[in-house]
Amino acid sequence: MDDLQERVGRSFAAQGLMETLGARLARVAEGEVWIELPFSGALSQQQGYAHAGAVTSIVDSACGYAAFTRAPEGCEVVTAEFKVNFLRPAIGRHFLAVGRVAHAGRTMGVCTGEVRAFTGEDENYKVVALMQATMVFVKS
Amino acid sequence: MDDLQERVGRSFAAQGLMETLGARLARVAEGEVWIELPFSGALSQQQGYAHAGAVTSIVDSACGYAAFTRAPEGCEVVTAEFKVNFLRPAIGRHFLAVGRVAHAGRTMGVCTGEVRAFTGEDENYKVVALMQATMVFVKS
Amino acid sequence: MDDLQERVGRSFAAQGLMETLGARLARVAEGEVWIELPFSGALSQQQGYAHAGAVTSIVDSACGYAAFTRAPEGCEVVTAEFKVNFLRPAIGRHFLAVGRVAHAGRTMGVCTGEVRAFTGEDENYKVVALMQATMVFVKS
Amino acid sequence: MDDLQERVGRSFAAQGLMETLGARLARVAEGEVWIELPFSGALSQQQGYAHAGAVTSIVDSACGYAAFTRAPEGCEVVTAEFKVNFLRPAIGRHFLAVGRVAHAGRTMGVCTGEVRAFTGEDENYKVVALMQATMVFVKS
Repeated sequence: MDDLQERVGRSFAAQGLMETLGARLARVAEGEVWIELPFSGALSQQQGYAHAGAVTSIVDSACGYAAFTRAPEGCEVVTAEFKVNFLRPAIGRHFLAVGRVAHAGRTMGVCTGEVRAFTGEDENYKVVALMQATMVFVKS
Repeated sequence: MDDLQERVGRSFAAQGLMETLGARLARVAEGEVWIELPFSGALSQQQGYAHAGAVTSIVDSACGYAAFTRAPEGCEVVTAEFKVNFLRPAIGRHFLAVGRVAHAGRTMGVCTGEVRAFTGEDENYKVVALMQATMVFVKS
Repeated sequence: MDDLQERVGRSFAAQGLMETLGARLARVAEGEVWIELPFSGALSQQQGYAHAGAVTSIVDSACGYAAFTRAPEGCEVVTAEFKVNFLRPAIGRHFLAVGRVAHAGRTMGVCTGEVRAFTGEDENYKVVALMQATMVFVKS
Repeated sequence: MDDLQERVGRSFAAQGLMETLGARLARVAEGEVWIELPFSGALSQQQGYAHAGAVTSIVDSACGYAAFTRAPEGCEVVTAEFKVNFLRPAIGRHFLAVGRVAHAGRTMGVCTGEVRAFTGEDENYKVVALMQATMVFVKS
């Protein structure tokens, strides 16, 4: 598992977009990965909330790395497709994307993800987006 | 139509994420909007290609503004949901997202979008992503 | 709640397709509805398993009625869109679709659903499909 | 191509659900397949229109067979996932599902589909549903 954490961390560090957005890998567990994103105006849509694209980026990476924890040895993960529902405006001080593996086969995995918006100092949050995604395992 | 271009341009300029990614509004027509994105390492996933989140961000905005050109007067557009298929690795010097309205009702519009990858100086491109999205019209 | 069960039951009975497929309303609770479907060759795809369309039909109705339990008074529910992942071949003696409300607003609700395949007499099942759907509330 | 038509026809004939719904294979071309469905009350949802599940069933089969025309030799096609937007109530005397291949690789294909509703004797139709689907090629 330490090795897995390290491999996910190394791959995450190579994702230029995550750095550009200011996202941080928050948790790596077997079949579940968390990514955190503090809000800033650099991520906004026209009304000042977080852009659907920013919200999607972190939950896509969270689902992708969740699938990676269940991928056959020597495989990378690429996103084949995803679908996201936006439940409410993405308003928050920071966001947490949680990606989970629902099913992993030999050649692909299906993941579900959610993005939680935290508006204050406490643990309370609202789910702002739901993802359902297909990740493909490819020999690296 | 000039007025429409101006309103889309103003709204686009207010999307902090588009500036962060380096995206540019390339065309506004009735029911169709184009957004351009030069590639840079700041947009990459772990293998060095454009991240699915970057690709999604521009085609989401393109579809959103396409819907906006068909929205009832005095309405903003927000993304209710979308689905994206990634057809091949997003490799290119620059990308063009094309969003189109497939159907517009009173309260929502359905859009289709594609992202084209240009690898050279010429007009040849490959479609790297397909979107199908639901945009909701809300009183602004 | 009795009244709700009755209204769902009446609406379900008016769905010609559910009778054609042989589906049965199995449970109506606040925010959650179950629909059961015994397998028969009349529901098959070319390899003899349940067709993705049959699987989708029951989980669409389950999600739709789950949304109906949370709809504003005097509203019907219609499906705006859904996405389904098929996790494994739909092999079973009978199937159970479970639809749940993830979020309900004034004009629409977002639901998640799953279809469980039971192969024997016991309670063991495998999830064969996952749905994420948007249901719209319309004045009836 | 004759051989392809025959193989699609044989496979379609083995889909029990298509017979149950009353659907008919209308056209098989390289990368595009049409399936026709006359409306009857046996296909209805609670308001008397065609059920989303019936609409989805024919466009799923149309997309699946479109992918089949581009599958590697000796491969079957199974649906990995799809997403459908319902643009308007599915009202019509008969429906036509058109499935098309957008991209075919070695292990999977991405298809787009639409369902057209014909209300009269003439050629006029309205598009009632849009599909975007991933089909997987498996050795048969």
